[in-house]
Amino acid sequence: MTSPRHVRRTPAGAAAAQAIPVPVLRRMPGYLQALRQFRTEGLEWVSCTRLAGRLGLDPALARKDFTALDITGKPKTGFPVTGLIRAIESCLGWDNVRDAFLVGAGSLGRALLGYRGFREHGLNIVAAFDTDPGKIGSSLHGTQVLPLSKLAGLARRMRVAIGIIATPAAAAQEVADLMVAGGLRAIWNFAPTSLSIPPEVLVENEDLSRTLAVLSQRLQARRALELEENG
Amino acid sequence: MTSPRHVRRTPAGAAAAQAIPVPVLRRMPGYLQALRQFRTEGLEWVSCTRLAGRLGLDPALARKDFTALDITGKPKTGFPVTGLIRAIESCLGWDNVRDAFLVGAGSLGRALLGYRGFREHGLNIVAAFDTDPGKIGSSLHGTQVLPLSKLAGLARRMRVAIGIIATPAAAAQEVADLMVAGGLRAIWNFAPTSLSIPPEVLVENEDLSRTLAVLSQRLQARRALELEENG
Repeated sequence: MTSPRHVRRTPAGAAAAQAIPVPVLRRMPGYLQALRQFRTEGLEWVSCTRLAGRLGLDPALARKDFTALDITGKPKTGFPVTGLIRAIESCLGWDNVRDAFLVGAGSLGRALLGYRGFREHGLNIVAAFDTDPGKIGSSLHGTQVLPLSKLAGLARRMRVAIGIIATPAAAAQEVADLMVAGGLRAIWNFAPTSLSIPPEVLVENEDLSRTLAVLSQRLQARRALELEENG
Repeated sequence: MTSPRHVRRTPAGAAAAQAIPVPVLRRMPGYLQALRQFRTEGLEWVSCTRLAGRLGLDPALARKDFTALDITGKPKTGFPVTGLIRAIESCLGWDNVRDAFLVGAGSLGRALLGYRGFREHGLNIVAAFDTDPGKIGSSLHGTQVLPLSKLAGLARRMRVAIGIIATPAAAAQEVADLMVAGGLRAIWNFAPTSLSIPPEVLVENEDLSRTLAVLSQRLQARRALELEENG
């Protein structure tokens, strides 16, 4: 409180953080996976060319993406593998594990609870919620299913930050309202519907149709090209 | 065969198709959903400003995205709602339904089979495959589960174009090899691993960690900002 404003240290990456575009962020997990492989293979330094090569990306793109991070490469040598891993994890906040609640213990919810990769991405699902009395009280992949009515109170008490919605579309808005009431800061929505959420709560929709759009347009374009060539 | 090359009609959108960037394609399903809502509300024409407004996007971005489509807007009036819907569906190939095979009848596979939205996105899952004798012969959401050993033969006979991998990471490459052997043209991979696939087969990885990267970095950046303001 007594330190003058210009001396206060900005949390790592925070200044650049706000401005990182979505496509750059979406490439970061891929870089991370490749870097962890390189580390396993015993590599200490990696060039953007080699890293991008493994991922089938343009090295210039990787080089540009890394300007968003709190790390600077060496000309001709590249980046220290461990340092680059840490810089990406710190940028994404994956160096700290955050607690999350999941709502909807149907097959999607079960699939998400069974996914082991979340923890190394900083996400720890501490409880699941449902309205179905047949599911409440059961345990899915080691996570207890609690009645939805308890969500808001528990979220406040446990200071849970992230909510995951894996319900049918019709139930999603009501669940989102409970999450907002419980003070959650971010919602990861798997229900195929758009939610109305106050601006202080972050939302990311996991919309499978977006990937399907890329796949089916590419397939369509390739077939059109073949027709052209063989027509 | 006899028509001279310059007269041959290019299939709709094929020329532009190859060049459409991934972020543009990923926004198309959102436009489509909003346009269908507008159509339900009785709207016949829509401006980019109004359409983008509903999606929280920049109107200039929407205007630029639509240059990839085989449709031209009218100044001050915008686009015909139905025409724009058709142009997007045609660009994505969603005006034709394509058959798909799904492999992996675990909770993720079940969740995907239960998702009703795929059909309106041009995808029809005609069969599921697994190696577990306890699952083979059963029916999930109306789709039969067959032994994995039948995949390649059936794919050739039924001329199935798309394969969906919903297996654990360790099984994914073997499944992908069977899909390639069966002549599938595109693979939608939900297993958290990267596949080695010949270049003539398209692959899109559905990697949840990519969305999680966006959500957690945004959350981290927002908290850093709050610390700054309250520090």
